[in-house]
Amino acid sequence: MLLAKIYVTLKPGVLDPQGEAVMGGLKAMGYEGVTAVRVGKYLEVQLDLDDRQEAGRQVEEMCRRLLANPVIEQYRYTLEEPAGTGGKA
Amino acid sequence: MLLAKIYVTLKPGVLDPQGEAVMGGLKAMGYEGVTAVRVGKYLEVQLDLDDRQEAGRQVEEMCRRLLANPVIEQYRYTLEEPAGTGGKA
Repeated sequence: MLLAKIYVTLKPGVLDPQGEAVMGGLKAMGYEGVTAVRVGKYLEVQLDLDDRQEAGRQVEEMCRRLLANPVIEQYRYTLEEPAGTGGKA
Repeated sequence: MLLAKIYVTLKPGVLDPQGEAVMGGLKAMGYEGVTAVRVGKYLEVQLDLDDRQEAGRQVEEMCRRLLANPVIEQYRYTLEEPAGTGGKA
């Protein structure tokens, strides 16, 4: 069992209306020190696989085909063993 | 200048319709090995602050007051120096 932690963010230079809205909200609440906010997606995908190479291959494919819009988004991920499995279940 | 990387996820046990939808999509695309998907938010908040303690205090407050819904969401964050600043700007 492997856990993929996937971070999908907008590519630099792409307008981030959600980030702008959050920044506006934070400033309105008095957090004057905020100079930029970028908002993205964080996904945890649990895979019934132990082969890290195969898991990496599948996660790359999942990101390219579904999880990230290649035109405006970029992604990175890590592969970990889910908490509490401690290696072979 | 400090960069807060904030991860907002649903608390364990809270139903995740978005995660269910993504899992359905991945299975429909043939990724049978996917056993669970959880979807959350990833935010990068840039702060015009160098005092890590003060930055941490403000980020905690931002999360509690705006970025995470305390009833169903949990959050964690890291504080880093933005890439390319190399310490004192």
